[in-house]
Amino acid sequence: MLDAIPDGEPHPWLYRLTRSYPSRPGKALRPALCLAAAGAFGGRPEDAMPAAVSIELLHNAFLVHDDIVDGSLRRRGHATLSAEFGTALALNAGDALAVLSNRVLRHYAHKLDRDLGDRLQSEFEVMALRTLEGQATELGWRHDDVRDLTPEHYLDLIMHKTCWYTSIHPLRVGALLGSGGTADLRPMVRFGFHLGAAFQIQDDLLNLEGDEREYGKEIDGDLFEGKRTLPLIHLAAEATGADRKIVDRYLGLDRSQRTSDLVEEVRSLLDTYGSIEYTRAYAQGIADTAYDTFEEAFAAAEPGPDVDFIRALIPYMLGRRS
Amino acid sequence: MLDAIPDGEPHPWLYRLTRSYPSRPGKALRPALCLAAAGAFGGRPEDAMPAAVSIELLHNAFLVHDDIVDGSLRRRGHATLSAEFGTALALNAGDALAVLSNRVLRHYAHKLDRDLGDRLQSEFEVMALRTLEGQATELGWRHDDVRDLTPEHYLDLIMHKTCWYTSIHPLRVGALLGSGGTADLRPMVRFGFHLGAAFQIQDDLLNLEGDEREYGKEIDGDLFEGKRTLPLIHLAAEATGADRKIVDRYLGLDRSQRTSDLVEEVRSLLDTYGSIEYTRAYAQGIADTAYDTFEEAFAAAEPGPDVDFIRALIPYMLGRRS
Repeated sequence: MLDAIPDGEPHPWLYRLTRSYPSRPGKALRPALCLAAAGAFGGRPEDAMPAAVSIELLHNAFLVHDDIVDGSLRRRGHATLSAEFGTALALNAGDALAVLSNRVLRHYAHKLDRDLGDRLQSEFEVMALRTLEGQATELGWRHDDVRDLTPEHYLDLIMHKTCWYTSIHPLRVGALLGSGGTADLRPMVRFGFHLGAAFQIQDDLLNLEGDEREYGKEIDGDLFEGKRTLPLIHLAAEATGADRKIVDRYLGLDRSQRTSDLVEEVRSLLDTYGSIEYTRAYAQGIADTAYDTFEEAFAAAEPGPDVDFIRALIPYMLGRRS
Repeated sequence: MLDAIPDGEPHPWLYRLTRSYPSRPGKALRPALCLAAAGAFGGRPEDAMPAAVSIELLHNAFLVHDDIVDGSLRRRGHATLSAEFGTALALNAGDALAVLSNRVLRHYAHKLDRDLGDRLQSEFEVMALRTLEGQATELGWRHDDVRDLTPEHYLDLIMHKTCWYTSIHPLRVGALLGSGGTADLRPMVRFGFHLGAAFQIQDDLLNLEGDEREYGKEIDGDLFEGKRTLPLIHLAAEATGADRKIVDRYLGLDRSQRTSDLVEEVRSLLDTYGSIEYTRAYAQGIADTAYDTFEEAFAAAEPGPDVDFIRALIPYMLGRRS
């Protein structure tokens, strides 16, 4: 991945920044999914490697911009780019990572059969727009202080914001390239949705009760931001009386008004109302459905270690600590 | 251009924002250059229209992000997206405009001869990286409070930050598409540089002495930001004694510390030291050179209204009020 990022000038203000997140240890979940899906549909790793690199570069671009928007301080165990270099240089570096992702993709698409290359680029565009639409909705909920959200609203949100680029897209692109364009990509949407939803819901939980060193981000960061996570949506629906007033007031505050004391108060209400337990059970239900949709999506795949790896990601999503 | 932007959901938080700047009256200088260059090299307007739309969409993406970074309040006579919707939603909308620009380009590239389509996409990548490199350098100068800048540093900066995407790229892409890939694009770099430099230097001047209504941005905005414009670089080199101390101190401040009184003080020093006059003369020198490089770049072009239009842009750059 680092080979795809120039190392020239202006190094201290651009390329040093673009190389930063990709140099930090990460799970590389998305490229791993893409390569395994390619293998499952008869391809070799090199068939999907440039696409996998492009996915991970775009993921890094999203992370840089998300960290600005969320005011996050820690990413993969180090300072965020925005915390270290300020909003302006970080924003610009995120833009550059998106261009570099696109460049890797185009170089590879040009080597493929023309229609296959065009389908590949089209998959990336759809994914990028889905993700930005989801991000806009989540930000919009906070911007307009939208209330009365249900788990269904949440699932629709994360379908766009998380699932498409975390799982649906890597699976579709891997299967597309591994099969040389013959695989049916439609069942990847359902399976990828369940896999990605399990990932995102576990992320909501880790943000509340993870180990900061393993997790790599600030614990309770979502609460400080007022992010409408599944536990918070549950609490907002269930809290009654004085607790209800506390939660309602909390949701309406700006980030700068959310003190540690307030965050602790809401955090403890999440326990009182069983919102953590609810979320854990919900994630389990999603994961159980993921097994069924997995069978459907990989019915035509070749049994072997790639298929086994992808199936094993379902329980991994709920068991992960980072 | 608006046809290239979806009008669906989430409308209030994404697509309404992406349609905002493209709906405001603008000069459309970049697409006009691209279309004229295509005509000058034997093409029809429709040969270059999708590329011209893609350029303008990317320009709008840059504007949205620039307005965040610069903390600007006004753009094309209305509130900036960041002023109206906040940093988060604006940043996300800028990202979406870049994806939409890319989508328009890819759809068109797919219809062209394959190598020509690939050259077209490659031109866009080079342009995007040049621009981001230039932006990084300008931001880096302010971030690290770089001093002792000369007009040569400034020209190198605006070559990257402004000229490539404002003039060099539209000219190259227009000539590429109009000629079906046969035109020599190299002389476009020199001419485009001079044309774009005249544009940027005039922008530095308009920012100091334009009419806010015509100009569409805040007057003295660059001074508040501490942007290293040509007039300011001249002043920093020329000021002596107590004035020197004022300027030095000013450069080292954060934006939030630059009060209206301080800005007014520096603004008046720009008059005292002839920095405005110097800049105006410098722009004239650049424009005069532009005529020579124009002849070189369009030696093989077909004489006619398109060539005349491009030549007429040279004096336009210095005469414009908006």
